[in-house]
Amino acid sequence: MKGFIFYNPTQIVFGEDQTKKIGKYIKDKKCLLLYGGGSIKKNGIYDKVVESLNKYNVSFVEKSGIKPNPVLSFVYEAIEFAKKEQVEAILAVGGGSVIDSAKAIAAGFYYYGDVWDFFIDKAQIKQALPIYTVLTLAATASEMNSGAVITNEKTKQKFNIRSDCLFPKVSILDPINTYTVPKDQVANGSVDAIVHLLEGYFTKKYPNTPIQDGFVETLVKTIISSTKEILKEPANYDARANFMWSATLALNGLTTAGIGEYAFPNHMIGHSLSALFDIAHGQSLSIVFPAWLKYNKDTLNNRLEHFGKEVFGVKSPDKAIEELEIYFKAIGAPTKLKDVNLSEADIEAIAQNAISLAKKWGLNDYSTEKIASILKFAL
Amino acid sequence: MKGFIFYNPTQIVFGEDQTKKIGKYIKDKKCLLLYGGGSIKKNGIYDKVVESLNKYNVSFVEKSGIKPNPVLSFVYEAIEFAKKEQVEAILAVGGGSVIDSAKAIAAGFYYYGDVWDFFIDKAQIKQALPIYTVLTLAATASEMNSGAVITNEKTKQKFNIRSDCLFPKVSILDPINTYTVPKDQVANGSVDAIVHLLEGYFTKKYPNTPIQDGFVETLVKTIISSTKEILKEPANYDARANFMWSATLALNGLTTAGIGEYAFPNHMIGHSLSALFDIAHGQSLSIVFPAWLKYNKDTLNNRLEHFGKEVFGVKSPDKAIEELEIYFKAIGAPTKLKDVNLSEADIEAIAQNAISLAKKWGLNDYSTEKIASILKFAL
Repeated sequence: MKGFIFYNPTQIVFGEDQTKKIGKYIKDKKCLLLYGGGSIKKNGIYDKVVESLNKYNVSFVEKSGIKPNPVLSFVYEAIEFAKKEQVEAILAVGGGSVIDSAKAIAAGFYYYGDVWDFFIDKAQIKQALPIYTVLTLAATASEMNSGAVITNEKTKQKFNIRSDCLFPKVSILDPINTYTVPKDQVANGSVDAIVHLLEGYFTKKYPNTPIQDGFVETLVKTIISSTKEILKEPANYDARANFMWSATLALNGLTTAGIGEYAFPNHMIGHSLSALFDIAHGQSLSIVFPAWLKYNKDTLNNRLEHFGKEVFGVKSPDKAIEELEIYFKAIGAPTKLKDVNLSEADIEAIAQNAISLAKKWGLNDYSTEKIASILKFAL
Repeated sequence: MKGFIFYNPTQIVFGEDQTKKIGKYIKDKKCLLLYGGGSIKKNGIYDKVVESLNKYNVSFVEKSGIKPNPVLSFVYEAIEFAKKEQVEAILAVGGGSVIDSAKAIAAGFYYYGDVWDFFIDKAQIKQALPIYTVLTLAATASEMNSGAVITNEKTKQKFNIRSDCLFPKVSILDPINTYTVPKDQVANGSVDAIVHLLEGYFTKKYPNTPIQDGFVETLVKTIISSTKEILKEPANYDARANFMWSATLALNGLTTAGIGEYAFPNHMIGHSLSALFDIAHGQSLSIVFPAWLKYNKDTLNNRLEHFGKEVFGVKSPDKAIEELEIYFKAIGAPTKLKDVNLSEADIEAIAQNAISLAKKWGLNDYSTEKIASILKFAL
């Protein structure tokens, strides 16, 4: 095992009917209530949250309209609003987009420069408003990690930040809050969580990490089986619960602690698909990841064989990739560029965009040519 | 999955040569340096710690002599000493006994009554000195949890406390610090960590917990294989590292979050063996656990079959228990009462002692008769 620091102070409150406790945890702080397109008003989660805030005398102002691939312009507006309202905490009710926006706003609140400075490594986050979340979409693990990804619409950059001050204080994970998540978003979340787990699993260099390998395999298997159950029966509590907790554990630091250096090449390329064409994050990954595996098949031979055996019970590297593609297709996730109306003509632009993220993330062995070659496997 | 709260703010600093950083984390606080029988002076860990404390201007006083099955009388003395010296933090350098003592002292420091009140639920821990640890023996996971077990020599009670204020702030886990741990203590630690994992695995009532099951199976397999490697080659870094991190994850809350109600019946009985006869904790468990499995074989049938298949690749419940006993014997752990010079004549006393802990822990389906019946399987 390689050396690591593991630190994750987020308190997870998991279970049926826990949403009503959110006010108790925030107590006495004026908060900015953030949410997305308004589905929480239709499914009753908004009412539950507001009832709890009122019960525990939490005053709040609200701002909504966050969309998938959350954008910098919203973050700017919300920072101004939060400052004007002198809020003392942020409550994000939603999925990764809402929570990531909350983190960017929380960091920007105490900073006198441009919050984008944090994303381009021009400044370091030193302070942030405390963040609380009520998760309504299991996918990104933002509810239990210190990172956030925001898209700068002007520069077409989908970039990330990370800081210990951005760990949510408390996250409420009530599986029932995800019962109404539509099938395509369930599929996106499933792909996202699986690829979170497998980026480290397939890019790490250090061989002897049986704990982390076993955890990843357990989580991938659980995500696959629970996703299938959810698509058949959206109100299956255990399936929603197993999926929700798996997705959280997929990117909370646990499965990568000790594996040494690893990288996110599929996120790097996927982010460019999202930044340029507003493709959902999960969709970008179900297209890129099988292509990336095929491109790297020879070097990943043994690893793919082990993965195939443990997760799908198949024997060859080819079969392992095939099973993953079959799974993606079965849940309705795109696996080719044409599935999202892109073609070979778009590859150059994606590769050009991705290379700036490759530089930021230190993926120095990625050239535009290599990225293009990978994407050709998705034609 | 059942509802749960997961909260674990301990920062783990894992890896070779990390001991030298401990002073940086404690900085500016006067600390009480606690350790055991002095092995840390022989193997050089003491010098490394002191050098780091000096480097970061951490002033300290020290108290040593903590033994396995740490006792209340030491805790009393150390609380008085800590108060007199007005320390601001505790640094535990050792294994579970030293860290558990540190926690009891940390809690007693701010309490004007008898610290044993916390153990008998007469008072609640509301405040504690910050605790830092340098782990030298992988076994109990006390370095990343909020519990502690202390033996009251007068009343012959081995009881526990738990409080969110008792999570260590920072724990240094350097596998090299465990290179000189003797074989019998490696075996004890291995048994302890395995039984920590399997108490929940075999006593939970809720069936659908694939994440937690997979994590437990991964950790048990890793502990078994790394223990064997360590016994062959004590300075095998990867084996020590995999063992160390597995033991920490075995009781840091992760594998039990979501499994619902579970119990520690084997610890309950084992603690009595230790309290009455000063049997090492690990030894008490390698004797009690196979007996407990045999007693409960019929009700645990399916679970044992699943466990046997996943961990040992065997097919029947009998084989699963047999493989576990074979493993315990192979690492030199006792599996019968006679292996620690006890006999049928001692069973009654153990059962009588255990029943008081059964009451404290709410194990209401355990009578002295039942405990005696279990122990008869260890004859």
